[in-house]
Amino acid sequence: MNKYLQIDEWNVVEEGFEPERQRMSESIFSLGNGSMGQRGNFVEGYDSDSYHASFVAGVHTTERTRVAWWKNGFSRFTSRIPIAADWSLIKLRLVDEELDLAHWIIGRFTRQLNMQDGIYSRQMEVTSPKGHTLTIQVEHIINMAHPKLCHIKYSVTSVNYSGRLSLLPLLSAEEDASDQPEGKVWNILRSECGRECADLWTQTRREDNQVCYAMTYQFFKNHTESSHGAIRIEKERQSGYSLGADVKPGDRITLIKYVAVVTSLQPRVIHIVEEAQQEALRAKQIGWDQLLADHSGVWHKLWQQTDVRIEGDPAAQQAIRYNIYQLYQTYRGDNPRLNIAPKGFTGERYGGNTYWNTELCCVPFFLLATPNDITRNLLLYRYNQLPQAIENARRLGFTGGAALFPQVTNSGSECHSEWEITFEEIHRNNIMVYAIAQHALMTGSLDYIRDYGLELMIAVCRFWSQRVSYSNQRHQYVILGVTGPNGYENNVDNNWYTNFSCQCCLRTTLLIINQLQKHYDAELTRVFTKVNFDYATETAHWQEIIDHLYLPYDAERGVFVQNDGYLDKELKPTSALRPEERPINQHWSWDRILRSCYIKQSDVLLGLYLYDSLFNLETLRRNFEFYEPMTVHESSLSPYIHSILAARLGKLDKAYGHFIHSCRLDLDDYNNEADQGLHITSMPGSWLAIVQGFGYFHLTDYHIPSFSPVLPPQWRSYQFQVYFRHATFVVKVGPEVAVTLQGDLPQEVMIYDQRYHLQPGETIQCPIKPSERQS
Amino acid sequence: MNKYLQIDEWNVVEEGFEPERQRMSESIFSLGNGSMGQRGNFVEGYDSDSYHASFVAGVHTTERTRVAWWKNGFSRFTSRIPIAADWSLIKLRLVDEELDLAHWIIGRFTRQLNMQDGIYSRQMEVTSPKGHTLTIQVEHIINMAHPKLCHIKYSVTSVNYSGRLSLLPLLSAEEDASDQPEGKVWNILRSECGRECADLWTQTRREDNQVCYAMTYQFFKNHTESSHGAIRIEKERQSGYSLGADVKPGDRITLIKYVAVVTSLQPRVIHIVEEAQQEALRAKQIGWDQLLADHSGVWHKLWQQTDVRIEGDPAAQQAIRYNIYQLYQTYRGDNPRLNIAPKGFTGERYGGNTYWNTELCCVPFFLLATPNDITRNLLLYRYNQLPQAIENARRLGFTGGAALFPQVTNSGSECHSEWEITFEEIHRNNIMVYAIAQHALMTGSLDYIRDYGLELMIAVCRFWSQRVSYSNQRHQYVILGVTGPNGYENNVDNNWYTNFSCQCCLRTTLLIINQLQKHYDAELTRVFTKVNFDYATETAHWQEIIDHLYLPYDAERGVFVQNDGYLDKELKPTSALRPEERPINQHWSWDRILRSCYIKQSDVLLGLYLYDSLFNLETLRRNFEFYEPMTVHESSLSPYIHSILAARLGKLDKAYGHFIHSCRLDLDDYNNEADQGLHITSMPGSWLAIVQGFGYFHLTDYHIPSFSPVLPPQWRSYQFQVYFRHATFVVKVGPEVAVTLQGDLPQEVMIYDQRYHLQPGETIQCPIKPSERQS
Repeated sequence: MNKYLQIDEWNVVEEGFEPERQRMSESIFSLGNGSMGQRGNFVEGYDSDSYHASFVAGVHTTERTRVAWWKNGFSRFTSRIPIAADWSLIKLRLVDEELDLAHWIIGRFTRQLNMQDGIYSRQMEVTSPKGHTLTIQVEHIINMAHPKLCHIKYSVTSVNYSGRLSLLPLLSAEEDASDQPEGKVWNILRSECGRECADLWTQTRREDNQVCYAMTYQFFKNHTESSHGAIRIEKERQSGYSLGADVKPGDRITLIKYVAVVTSLQPRVIHIVEEAQQEALRAKQIGWDQLLADHSGVWHKLWQQTDVRIEGDPAAQQAIRYNIYQLYQTYRGDNPRLNIAPKGFTGERYGGNTYWNTELCCVPFFLLATPNDITRNLLLYRYNQLPQAIENARRLGFTGGAALFPQVTNSGSECHSEWEITFEEIHRNNIMVYAIAQHALMTGSLDYIRDYGLELMIAVCRFWSQRVSYSNQRHQYVILGVTGPNGYENNVDNNWYTNFSCQCCLRTTLLIINQLQKHYDAELTRVFTKVNFDYATETAHWQEIIDHLYLPYDAERGVFVQNDGYLDKELKPTSALRPEERPINQHWSWDRILRSCYIKQSDVLLGLYLYDSLFNLETLRRNFEFYEPMTVHESSLSPYIHSILAARLGKLDKAYGHFIHSCRLDLDDYNNEADQGLHITSMPGSWLAIVQGFGYFHLTDYHIPSFSPVLPPQWRSYQFQVYFRHATFVVKVGPEVAVTLQGDLPQEVMIYDQRYHLQPGETIQCPIKPSERQS
Repeated sequence: MNKYLQIDEWNVVEEGFEPERQRMSESIFSLGNGSMGQRGNFVEGYDSDSYHASFVAGVHTTERTRVAWWKNGFSRFTSRIPIAADWSLIKLRLVDEELDLAHWIIGRFTRQLNMQDGIYSRQMEVTSPKGHTLTIQVEHIINMAHPKLCHIKYSVTSVNYSGRLSLLPLLSAEEDASDQPEGKVWNILRSECGRECADLWTQTRREDNQVCYAMTYQFFKNHTESSHGAIRIEKERQSGYSLGADVKPGDRITLIKYVAVVTSLQPRVIHIVEEAQQEALRAKQIGWDQLLADHSGVWHKLWQQTDVRIEGDPAAQQAIRYNIYQLYQTYRGDNPRLNIAPKGFTGERYGGNTYWNTELCCVPFFLLATPNDITRNLLLYRYNQLPQAIENARRLGFTGGAALFPQVTNSGSECHSEWEITFEEIHRNNIMVYAIAQHALMTGSLDYIRDYGLELMIAVCRFWSQRVSYSNQRHQYVILGVTGPNGYENNVDNNWYTNFSCQCCLRTTLLIINQLQKHYDAELTRVFTKVNFDYATETAHWQEIIDHLYLPYDAERGVFVQNDGYLDKELKPTSALRPEERPINQHWSWDRILRSCYIKQSDVLLGLYLYDSLFNLETLRRNFEFYEPMTVHESSLSPYIHSILAARLGKLDKAYGHFIHSCRLDLDDYNNEADQGLHITSMPGSWLAIVQGFGYFHLTDYHIPSFSPVLPPQWRSYQFQVYFRHATFVVKVGPEVAVTLQGDLPQEVMIYDQRYHLQPGETIQCPIKPSERQS
């Protein structure tokens, strides 16, 4: 834990500068707009410990796979997102001093993220070694309305300094920080500075992914614009300007730096340098105020759609907004070539690659929290990578169009090289199908499945039909040699979650084929022909597996068994661990972790969460009470799921504890790793904990939306919105529950198992049932 | 398979030069004397595909561990044996041409290893691009009697060439072939050439392991010695001479190159350069003929002690000698700092490190095949590394002096970084104890155990006492998360071999403590005090584990189960594999291998072999007939064990098949990998297959040596010697079995379960019982 940020419902505020929390603050104050992102680095000089990184979405770089021992089936190459050139750099010079925040004295210091308007600002007073004091005010925007634009307003007021004061806005690839053993990532194709515009044209060394930065500026002294005397800077890997003015105490100079970032991946980018220059100049033409208004306008609209209000708990209120804010900074849903990396644009860990986190945690958020079909592009991302997933399976010995989606990927091929993950954590295949089915359910449309989804579903089912094997001993199908979502057991047999989700995957696909047969027979034929599908034989085999798949169960305890052999372990609660042993993944050898009963993240419980409607509350309770005490939650995906399940079981204290853990994971740095970046892909989990947990939004068997809210004792009330097909439900939960229908059509809804027919604009109110599910 | 070497009982002969088999021949004709070794590279120029490597025993180099994903518990550094400077290089020059065997025409070509005398020679006729033809004769000796000396006699006869002919004997570190990513391994401390002697003083970059080479020579023209006109060569990384003579057709020049190799690891080496120079000059003083006589004398003595004679099967005869020959070239047993790497001095694979192969396959050979106590130094090697083994266990979370010996090591710390091996292939700990117990049994002395062995045994037992866990479900101790000798299953529970050998290890240690209590109570107290041994508590816990350790057994089949879950696999014989799928480790993905039933090397059967006396023949038969059909023998340690067990079961065809596979593994290149080096540490397996398999040498419960030979139908007879305590048995098996006792004392012996009291020199003869155990 590392708590120093102030609690405020709409702002994240750090008062006072402490160098040892700089890396964490750089993570916390990260900015982005879906197309690019940047850690909250100082834009000016800071010659001390720092994690400086900017990223451009979709740009990746390829590396040869490095492992200690090669295993057949590994991908030869992996890819990751490289640290881009620094487009934010602004140097500040006095006559014979240059600002270095590591060596100048920092007096007052505040940095602040205003989430409502999307403005990151910093105010500080600094004094040079020679005693010159300045006040500085920085506003830093990566524009949500103009996806190629970033702009910074940098104002300096002299307190006691008289003389020349210069600001140098630069584009710089001098620090090619990506630690590739083969050397620098970025070739520089051009680094030039014209009268109006400076540019830096970069290219990844092997893939020819191009990023071109262009920059222009406005420069003011005491509110009077002046670009007189700008000196052009043109180095091999850096370009920009030096802008100066003579100041005396009380004078203020202001630089507005307009930067355009254009990549060769964006559609219709041909003349990349011209395009970047035009964008930069257009930005200047629009001007700071309008750019800011456009940007804040996007945020206002997003808040209107997705804000959650919590009364009585400002820490939770701040954090839930922070999580929504950071997710939208990372992903906007407008490009099927992009996805959401676990750390977004806030760190290099996980290589900027895509994990199953997207389907598990982000897809349900986007399905429910926004009226836009953002999910469709996330699904298309996987569909477009289906050929590589088939190749991935082929490399492992599967045939006939079977697909194994990679555990970690950027361009579709596997980017990970631990066999126990790559080859064995195959349950990931099921969440792809689950996400497609959820999309159909929540949108009420089979169109995506018909056009794309079914092809993927068949490929995944074909994988399972080969991956299961028949045990003559059990007279059942088994799935041997897997790693479940609990990564703390490897190469186990019959992981309950893997087996069960495989069964559901096959069942769902059969069901959907049946549905499609009713309305879309021609399209079905097209898909079957395309993938050479032998309907009768293949579906019969799937049904055979569904009917005879082994699902480990302990009758004595009435719980599903995580995997074969799990009950042979010494079963101990996490309370048996000493505090200094936690997290165990930092303090125990891998060997000891593997042999222990401790669970990294929900495994059986994950299944009970995802396939909620198939289990009764007593089954959930027995399993929750068996597994939850042994779970160490060392994955950021774990707490929110436990919060949801605990809320359903009426265990409100536990539900709140897991919720606040999930919600403030980064702001309070629960895992002592926020310095490496934020847990972007699990941030939506805290929203799901409110909506699916406390609010218990779910669909009935007849697809009627249903709410059965509970109110954690820590809160006076909470309010959220859920989008379901054509309807929007505004749900407020306090002493009373109020559900309002927005939209143009009437909609049925269940509240505490009572059915209502809501008209547009109508609100149903009823008292909260506090003890309903607490037995 | 790659068969081209001629069959000859005492020689390995290659006729004709084929560039594509050069790498394999370089392996096959490897030379060594325990202190150093060299692949059978051409000493002269060869600018084509080749694997050039020389090694100096005990010299290692350290590297930072490189893995894709770090796991707690990995060693930070690993070490390996680097390729040393080339001390054998001799260039041949005409006036304006230099011999390059890749570009000159090679006419007649023979290379030959005379194993009886230990002489490697090569004869060839070569013609230069300009048409100059020479005949060349090379004899290359790494001296078994003078461990620091290597000498080469290089003779050239002109067929049609007239002019200057020069030979350049060199010491060269110009090719620093070890592919360290950090750069060259070797610093050159000195490279000088004096009147009498040239030297090259090298040092590993990080560890300061020094190797100094010195060289002198004799040069003859038509049998007349002349060193007139020698030109000294002194480069940064190379030193030597250029020696020339004017020749006409029929003239012959001869160079004898005397090289001394001295390391800073050898005892009492202080002035390493002087020492090397003196050694080289001493060699010259002794002269070629006497050096050769000394060297051959060592071989003659070794053959006298260890030769095996097989009548009727020259391929087997050649191969068994080749295996004994290569083993003795690699390890002489005179230095407890040295051990035997899987590839010896014939390749870099396995890093020149020590594996459990030593204890499994080499120790029983040295115990039985030689009168010298070579095993003691192999045991001391491990004892000396006990502190690192304790540190290794500590790093994994074990306490109180528990030891885990590394899977792969050089200096004692773990040199491997696959968790499933490093952390899990822990059965290796037991073979350390097994080897100590076998040493006591075969030598009839507890002295080593008293002085060293017990301490190690206690440390290993302490490991097991913490590594087992108690299953409340089974009410038994279990061992979770291991990899058995069959490396094709990872992270399994209750591997039968691991559990059983753990039980035997604990039992043996308790037994030995009991025995020591009778005679060595003071020494026992010393050890107990040293390791802080709580006799009552610890031994009681060990006994508790022995009594309640789970050993998986399938009552229906009457077989031990390789590990939990094995019987859930699809059990198929290897005959179900298509030939192009084998070896499966080259053709299948790792994932598929793990899920298959196929076994890399004996696992349950290994236990039945090692603990032979604890199982009856019917148990062996059932397990052999169950597991052997599923074994792919993709470890070189597998075939000989199966040969031994098949022989015991009277399955003579199978026994012979596995024997010849084991015996000619490299000569016939069964695994298509002889180009990478020889399988040195499994070579003794073919000797064990004869002695423990066909001869069925074993001890009865009362430690009486016993033979129950069978004769494979492919052989007329075979003869071997076994050393047991003070006795030597010469055993000849043909239509009659003849056992002769050598030595000074009488000895009891069993032949076919019949007890005899043999006097020194006495021979017992009886007819062979061909069908005795074939039922």
